Amino acid sequence: MSRVAYVGGQYLPHRQAAVHIEDRGYQFGDGVYEVIAVVRGVLVDEDRHLARLHRSLTELRINLPMGDGALKIVMREVIRRNGVDTGIVYLQVTRGVAPRDHAFPKAAKPVLVVTSRRSRPADPRLGRDGIAVITIRDIRWQRCDIKSVALVANVLGKQQAREAGAYEAWQIDREGQVTEGTSTNAWIVTSDNTVVTRAADHAILNGVTRAAIFDIMHREGYRLVERSFTVEEAKAAREAFLTSTTADLLPVVRIDGDPVADGQPGPLSRKLREAYLVHAAAAA
Amino acid sequence: MSRVAYVGGQYLPHRQAAVHIEDRGYQFGDGVYEVIAVVRGVLVDEDRHLARLHRSLTELRINLPMGDGALKIVMREVIRRNGVDTGIVYLQVTRGVAPRDHAFPKAAKPVLVVTSRRSRPADPRLGRDGIAVITIRDIRWQRCDIKSVALVANVLGKQQAREAGAYEAWQIDREGQVTEGTSTNAWIVTSDNTVVTRAADHAILNGVTRAAIFDIMHREGYRLVERSFTVEEAKAAREAFLTSTTADLLPVVRIDGDPVADGQPGPLSRKLREAYLVHAAAAA
Repeated sequence: MSRVAYVGGQYLPHRQAAVHIEDRGYQFGDGVYEVIAVVRGVLVDEDRHLARLHRSLTELRINLPMGDGALKIVMREVIRRNGVDTGIVYLQVTRGVAPRDHAFPKAAKPVLVVTSRRSRPADPRLGRDGIAVITIRDIRWQRCDIKSVALVANVLGKQQAREAGAYEAWQIDREGQVTEGTSTNAWIVTSDNTVVTRAADHAILNGVTRAAIFDIMHREGYRLVERSFTVEEAKAAREAFLTSTTADLLPVVRIDGDPVADGQPGPLSRKLREAYLVHAAAAA
Repeated sequence: MSRVAYVGGQYLPHRQAAVHIEDRGYQFGDGVYEVIAVVRGVLVDEDRHLARLHRSLTELRINLPMGDGALKIVMREVIRRNGVDTGIVYLQVTRGVAPRDHAFPKAAKPVLVVTSRRSRPADPRLGRDGIAVITIRDIRWQRCDIKSVALVANVLGKQQAREAGAYEAWQIDREGQVTEGTSTNAWIVTSDNTVVTRAADHAILNGVTRAAIFDIMHREGYRLVERSFTVEEAKAAREAFLTSTTADLLPVVRIDGDPVADGQPGPLSRKLREAYLVHAAAAA
């Protein structure tokens, strides 16, 4: 089955799926995106993703070029045409095409792009054995709550992690506090089994998987505190983990080369991961 | 004459000039750009622009897909095909097309896009009467020395300026110092006629017009200091101005609604503007 993408009103063969060189996404990073997991044909936490999409668009004052109902139909059609049963759907909305000028163009029509692809089942060893993170300085802009496509700092951070043999880079703000990974939220578990993750301020993306984990914890009666934590606290933590739509929940077993606790995935991380996978599957 | 763009090896009609939706410029802002003034068919300060392009590419570890000699030929061909006598040439290099993943793709080939357009002669009133700036918090990433296309923060800042009836927004760092405008460098003249502009650290772009002004000042024996200055100092300055490839040098006569000195373009700003315009014309 050949791949198909939705681009500004048309379903196109993937190879020919293109946007104009004066699309403001290309010239300015002037757009936003979402990645939604697809499990057995169902979009996981779809409404939360759409709510966040609207929030990002509102912050940048870009109009979604269709209603949510139509968007849901387009996403399903892209999933169907790509024969995706389990994978992801990616959507991007930019301010549209206009002669290059930083300020908002008067007449541009926002452009929606939707793609979908099968994921190889995520490597099960990552969930079982856990992953390593490094820590780097957070050099990103100060509105990381907006899910903008201007991701060059995240790209550099992720690359640094890969070259260090790590899965992710946790970014550290000027106060020495962890903000988040380059494409994941960061969590620790303290010695009294309290789960800690940064409050959703302007320095992090308010993760949809993060919210789903919150629901699980509230339902199951876990102790949860939203507050910042330092690298030192993370390294001394009982457990650590990260979350995102594509990673689900992965135990963090090494930070900057040092083992977290005994260097094995902690029991709380494992339980939350299992509960999250049930949640994602149950959505389907 | 219909417009033509160079896109990854081909000269295409402007309307059909497109890049793939998985071009990393579109999905990540993972690319860099330059804008070069064209005066009577000649590229102003071309070698300085190319040197800066190489620096930006090196910082992001993107390879320019051709040598400088070939690039110069492509730019001239785009200028010629667009019938541009006086205007700008825009070039953008992205990391290329690859399945979406933050880290650098192994196999992507960088994509070069070159466009050119005639500028209306810049509104002469701006140079004669001066322009207004507002000040805003600098929320951009911490590597503004890299001329990346991830410009969403600059877009928001410029829009804020326009809505305030100003030409530009000067951005203020956490220490209360002016970094630069959203697409221009910022300058003041102190009471002893010393010209002051921020040193080219990671918080600002090392402007090519800025360098040309430096040359002029050294040649003419003006006093120049590279150091940071606060908004308060700027508001109390004898003169203020901004520079960029597209703005040349424009006197700043209002900051946040308050007049700079008597609210008229200062003599030093006027002299430097004239000298810069002679420099740009002499390049041709």
